[in-house]
Amino acid sequence: MSTMTTAGAPSREGTCTLGLDFGTLSVRAVVTRVSDGEILADAVSEYATPIMDRRLTAGDNRELPPEFALQVPGDYLESMCAASAAAVRASRVSSTDIIGVGLDVTSATVVVTDSDGVPMCDKPEFANNPHAYVKLWKHHGAQGQADRIVELAKKRGEAWLPRYGGILSAEMLLPKALETLEKAPDLYAATGEIVDMLDWLTWRLTGTLAYSASDSGYKRMLQDGVYPSEEFLGALNPDFADVYATRMDHPIAPLGSAVGGLTAEYAQAFGLREGTPVAAGNIDAHVHAASVNAVRPGQLTGILGTSTCWVLPAEECVEVPGVFGVVDGGISEGTWGYEAGQSAVGDSFAWFIENNVPRSYFIEAESEGISIFALLARLAAEQEIGEHGLVALDWWNGNRSPLVDSQLTGLMIGQTLVTRPEDQYRALLESTAFGARVIIENFESHGVPVTEVRVAGGLIKDEFLMQMYADITRRRLLTASTLQAGAHGSSIFAAVAAGAHPDLPAAATAMGGVSERIYEPNEPAAAQYDRLYEIYRHLHGLFGRGDETMHALKALRADALRRRAEEPADAE
Amino acid sequence: MSTMTTAGAPSREGTCTLGLDFGTLSVRAVVTRVSDGEILADAVSEYATPIMDRRLTAGDNRELPPEFALQVPGDYLESMCAASAAAVRASRVSSTDIIGVGLDVTSATVVVTDSDGVPMCDKPEFANNPHAYVKLWKHHGAQGQADRIVELAKKRGEAWLPRYGGILSAEMLLPKALETLEKAPDLYAATGEIVDMLDWLTWRLTGTLAYSASDSGYKRMLQDGVYPSEEFLGALNPDFADVYATRMDHPIAPLGSAVGGLTAEYAQAFGLREGTPVAAGNIDAHVHAASVNAVRPGQLTGILGTSTCWVLPAEECVEVPGVFGVVDGGISEGTWGYEAGQSAVGDSFAWFIENNVPRSYFIEAESEGISIFALLARLAAEQEIGEHGLVALDWWNGNRSPLVDSQLTGLMIGQTLVTRPEDQYRALLESTAFGARVIIENFESHGVPVTEVRVAGGLIKDEFLMQMYADITRRRLLTASTLQAGAHGSSIFAAVAAGAHPDLPAAATAMGGVSERIYEPNEPAAAQYDRLYEIYRHLHGLFGRGDETMHALKALRADALRRRAEEPADAE
Repeated sequence: MSTMTTAGAPSREGTCTLGLDFGTLSVRAVVTRVSDGEILADAVSEYATPIMDRRLTAGDNRELPPEFALQVPGDYLESMCAASAAAVRASRVSSTDIIGVGLDVTSATVVVTDSDGVPMCDKPEFANNPHAYVKLWKHHGAQGQADRIVELAKKRGEAWLPRYGGILSAEMLLPKALETLEKAPDLYAATGEIVDMLDWLTWRLTGTLAYSASDSGYKRMLQDGVYPSEEFLGALNPDFADVYATRMDHPIAPLGSAVGGLTAEYAQAFGLREGTPVAAGNIDAHVHAASVNAVRPGQLTGILGTSTCWVLPAEECVEVPGVFGVVDGGISEGTWGYEAGQSAVGDSFAWFIENNVPRSYFIEAESEGISIFALLARLAAEQEIGEHGLVALDWWNGNRSPLVDSQLTGLMIGQTLVTRPEDQYRALLESTAFGARVIIENFESHGVPVTEVRVAGGLIKDEFLMQMYADITRRRLLTASTLQAGAHGSSIFAAVAAGAHPDLPAAATAMGGVSERIYEPNEPAAAQYDRLYEIYRHLHGLFGRGDETMHALKALRADALRRRAEEPADAE
Repeated sequence: MSTMTTAGAPSREGTCTLGLDFGTLSVRAVVTRVSDGEILADAVSEYATPIMDRRLTAGDNRELPPEFALQVPGDYLESMCAASAAAVRASRVSSTDIIGVGLDVTSATVVVTDSDGVPMCDKPEFANNPHAYVKLWKHHGAQGQADRIVELAKKRGEAWLPRYGGILSAEMLLPKALETLEKAPDLYAATGEIVDMLDWLTWRLTGTLAYSASDSGYKRMLQDGVYPSEEFLGALNPDFADVYATRMDHPIAPLGSAVGGLTAEYAQAFGLREGTPVAAGNIDAHVHAASVNAVRPGQLTGILGTSTCWVLPAEECVEVPGVFGVVDGGISEGTWGYEAGQSAVGDSFAWFIENNVPRSYFIEAESEGISIFALLARLAAEQEIGEHGLVALDWWNGNRSPLVDSQLTGLMIGQTLVTRPEDQYRALLESTAFGARVIIENFESHGVPVTEVRVAGGLIKDEFLMQMYADITRRRLLTASTLQAGAHGSSIFAAVAAGAHPDLPAAATAMGGVSERIYEPNEPAAAQYDRLYEIYRHLHGLFGRGDETMHALKALRADALRRRAEEPADAE
């Protein structure tokens, strides 16, 4: 675990809140002034254990099945304390002036615990059971369960299914819970609670287990005040009928409400007062909408990072295929919150850099004193649109919206002997912008207006990429004023929970906002991109619906991995 | 130009021939004993000027249109003399014991000259005209002309069209000649001869211009003793009606016959006797059949290098879609010769190594003291078949057989965030083996038997690849006994022309043969590969026929390059 702290200007006046943003690899803490939203200090702490996707390194190092992605729950607590204490210290604000704590976590990251909240992996008898660990959002081991849930829900005409775009991602809580029951029944039997990480963390901080209303709608399948029925759940698996009643039944906490006050233990660890209000947890992407002050209907916020999440408040509840969730009060109380996503964005760029860029490019970047990303972007930018002759499908980690199919994979078409790495890189960038355009068009064509687009996340630093997004989507892009928009957004929710502002829109107006860097679409470029987009849409339809090539390859891969597992090991 | 010489064992007894193999980048000369085919010496000389595919470096350095690939004709002569003299010297054979010269050249490499054979690019007034240079086999600037030729031939029901698989490659002589007429009419008007490089070289060596019968059938469209009619040619372009009569009308020389005797000039340059018989020129791929002694019906020879050529003698003449040519006496007098091809094989592997392999792999290869190809093959070999989850279409330079479409492009499908370079490399290797299987199945399903497969060319060194080819095609592979099978094959034709053996089969039996390294197909592996092959076939059909994605991308690229050319230059 490493902790990095940045101190802002020394505190001048007024009260502050602490915002915590739990990402995939680290947690960030910021101290923010509630009057104007200025960040006074921030600190980051990386989790101690790398993601376990090949071996159970925290246990007996056994090989993991394909599609697994596990973490150690204690790492979250340890890093949270380190980052919070560091940020509070660096802010130079008196502990009495920090009036609230808010947090957000990667969504659908699930932990199993006993009834006191102790993670099952901390118990010696389950330390070598992969299912006893945190199932990270991108754990896709429950695809089979997700498929069955959808199939059954369709057959039974379950009313909640359309709220999830008519389909259910393998990343959701319910498939992951069913996977635990079916793959690790002993563990399941011993489990007291199956809880999303964000609720587990507010439980740890306050001693109270309450489920965030937003997350419960998006990821826990609470719709119109009820969960999927016992009849439905029992039809999936008789032992699953009572999963909510026995393991997932606690009160719901609306966004902006306080779950409870900080316990003495964590107050001391953070350097704050005991009893400081802790806001209901939130989904990491969603808090960005507060940070960029886009919590009103029609304001689409894109959070562009390793993956991309699109959140959109709207007046009405309509059914949009492939939208990940439609939740009453899901982004802001009083509106319907829509969420859509792209599973691999920055991740696929990083994959390319790591796997497919030759040495000479790194040498060139070093000699110019720029990043490899910047070099490739510059080389890519020297081309005419379409000159590379390539189109990619941006499905390196499946397609979340609108197809909701984690078994889809990447594709690149058009390579020749004169294709260069910068051509492929540009095609990858473009593919994610095309994916964004599909999502926007999908909202609008189903009657959910998108009047404005605001973007946050690490990728907004990439000016070439942002201009490309503006051109391809033909949308003006307003950009976040901070790269810490996650933690910043959580500090805004903390301010609402602490009563510093009357409601979220008021808090977001006072504390949130965008920068002066605006990207306007360039019409000639947009017209050229249209021609590539037409090809992208064609391939999207071809491989996204009907053609089974990608699924067949995934099945062959799974089969090959099974054969490998059955081979006699050479040595140990 | 660099020349490398290897001397074999000193000559013991008997007469020899000189075989010359003109590749894309260099010419190789070998001195071979006619009694047993042993190579006594060989030498290689690289052409002085790199392939001109972006700029006319030998002229005024102007930017070239897309799809161009040009060379300097004089480079061929210079390197030929250097390599021949070096090989003759190194062989330690007396000049009186070298009784014949044979040569082969990359096929459909075209040069325009005056009526004395002086290349047009050597004349100051045409030195800056790209069309005055050698159009290398892989020059694809004449695609538009090829398309029109096929369209018109179909409409008119030209009898020769089925002999070329119902379609015509842009690489053929006729499209290239029409391109010259239409793009450079002044040059065309001044041109005396339009001649394939192999005939130009025997012309230079002997003073006699005669067209190789084999090449005339495969590349000059001579079928059943006649060329395409003036009526047909005139309908393409009125000024083209007399192209054969005025610029391509000389006698035909059967394979194994002598075009003439070596001139005093070249005899002196090579260190041989004036008047030494020079055999009719041959297509580079085809001479390999002689070297591996596969000149009888049913014996398929694959020449696996940067691209792959498949040649097959057969008893009968039938129509096989997408086979590049069916020529009476095209491989060996008395049989019908079939040719099929794959446009990018080693080329696509080299492209991948150059463009998509990160530094760490090179460091690893260096530390192990092996080539980067060997490292990737070893890493790829550690996988179960199908474990990479990928399929590629091997069309990085179009598809020659069976689709004959230079505008097709590469495709890779199945990438995920855990895909590694060795996965992609293996998928590329497999794609070329799948392409080979399509070609073999295409022969057999149209009634041309393939009873045996023999392979030659640089890629036979790659044992992993050869086993993969055996497994995927379910064919026993016999491998050439020399990596110089091209020049070796030409020395066998030289022996026939010199009368040292009665005919080609006798000469091939005496001088040709295969090594002890035989690859037997492994049935369990073959069964696994079948499942990937099924996906390959599906994509092959999808993008090869009907779906216009690849053509649309090529058109967008050409359009982008046009826009770029119209841009005001920043500086000169």
